Amino acid sequence: MGRLIARRPVVRFGPEGTRRRPDSIAVEEPLELRVNGKALAVTMRTPGHDVELAHGFLQTEGVIGGPDDILSARYCDSRDDEGRNTYNVLDLALAPGVAPPEIGVERNFYTTSSCGVCGKASLDAVRLKSRHLPLGDPVRVALDVLAGLPDVLRSQQQVFDRTGGLHAAGLFTAEGEQLVVREDVGRHNAVDKAVGWALLQGRIPARGCILVVSGRTSFELAQKAVMAGIPVLGAVSAPSSLAIDLACESGLTLAGFIRNGSLNVYAHAERIAVPALVET
Amino acid sequence: MGRLIARRPVVRFGPEGTRRRPDSIAVEEPLELRVNGKALAVTMRTPGHDVELAHGFLQTEGVIGGPDDILSARYCDSRDDEGRNTYNVLDLALAPGVAPPEIGVERNFYTTSSCGVCGKASLDAVRLKSRHLPLGDPVRVALDVLAGLPDVLRSQQQVFDRTGGLHAAGLFTAEGEQLVVREDVGRHNAVDKAVGWALLQGRIPARGCILVVSGRTSFELAQKAVMAGIPVLGAVSAPSSLAIDLACESGLTLAGFIRNGSLNVYAHAERIAVPALVET
Repeated sequence: MGRLIARRPVVRFGPEGTRRRPDSIAVEEPLELRVNGKALAVTMRTPGHDVELAHGFLQTEGVIGGPDDILSARYCDSRDDEGRNTYNVLDLALAPGVAPPEIGVERNFYTTSSCGVCGKASLDAVRLKSRHLPLGDPVRVALDVLAGLPDVLRSQQQVFDRTGGLHAAGLFTAEGEQLVVREDVGRHNAVDKAVGWALLQGRIPARGCILVVSGRTSFELAQKAVMAGIPVLGAVSAPSSLAIDLACESGLTLAGFIRNGSLNVYAHAERIAVPALVET
Repeated sequence: MGRLIARRPVVRFGPEGTRRRPDSIAVEEPLELRVNGKALAVTMRTPGHDVELAHGFLQTEGVIGGPDDILSARYCDSRDDEGRNTYNVLDLALAPGVAPPEIGVERNFYTTSSCGVCGKASLDAVRLKSRHLPLGDPVRVALDVLAGLPDVLRSQQQVFDRTGGLHAAGLFTAEGEQLVVREDVGRHNAVDKAVGWALLQGRIPARGCILVVSGRTSFELAQKAVMAGIPVLGAVSAPSSLAIDLACESGLTLAGFIRNGSLNVYAHAERIAVPALVET
């Protein structure tokens, strides 16, 4: 965990007095993604699984359609003041015939989505782009399986346990088998890392799978699920209105407030299987 | 709260059975910011306080140095399918002599910060840009005041109470008097709205003030505080390593894990005033 956790001095104030001690902190560093040598994006991320992150990012942004669209990923020779490679610049070579991403003005500053200026336009943009809409995925998920996944995700958050500072995303089978769990200081990055893992495993589109996230569901997180062909997205907290609208139109089952054996489903609840009541 | 909260049908699954009901959902819609008629950024935000958001965004990105640098802000005539203005496109006219922002490649996709590719470069970029470094701000904050502010912030989160789906940011005086609280589906937006409010009130640089946020502290949130000249930033959860590094170098007091009367201070703890022990 060398680059995942840093030690910093902290002063702890409280009713019991004041004391100084070192504390474990989640590492955040910028990652510059380049495509064919040209800078594309900088994201603030937890180091590690950068190649997965890059694959997941390009997949969920619609730049690539599969793992074969990326020929290679390598760290550039970027040096810090002391001459050490920062491992913070990653260059991806696209396969011949794969169009490099266009950098439109609407993507600048802090947008991650190819959205327009109203909800309808946003949804249109996504629907046009996704090659793997989950609409029609026949998977069914048992209520008790879905209700239990946030606890499984939480139990796998090794860096969170020590720092309290990370988001998590996990991909599971419909039976609740864990495929991958990734942590990151950024919500989007955690999902990109999980999707990138699936892409590199040949599992995209992720038909029949469940994506679980540790926080709230924004439009952008729902969009990433849709772009990866994931049919079920579950979150510990609330979704936004636009996340629900996207889920409804894209065939994504969207669950939230998964707590204490209960959950809300905001779109495509037909995939949730409830045990038949047994008369006693 | 017409545009802040939407109603959506939800299916509630749990041990007590399954039922359908309408639920209150936090609204998320894209806002396109234009500067002098030219598209600059799209952010996914909770509608409302858009002019504050735009002012805070341009201030914390270093585009403007004060409220006089923006001559006007007006909604463009953007229409949805039914011909209604979406109020999702806001055009800002800069004062003569104010340079419009350059859209560099490093700002594309989902970065909000003018960061380089290692921590050091990131800090350099900020230090060069901030016109209001909090370094040297002589303010002192009583421990019990700072420890109590997250509860005050929470008590002001009207939309969160109904949806569970929003982040919050609040600006307070050193004595704990509330200046402004803003909510948004996006963490950065909540801070930008609070900073924008302060800018329009002539309170930037926000010397002697405390910014409180509802979640974790990333580099980007710490950077926004530094850009606004805020000397104390308190958060309910953990900071990242780069947020701490920036705070140390910029003179920002950074507190986290403010819970149950205790808190951690990661940088510039000298501003925290602890009551002298009284011998009994």
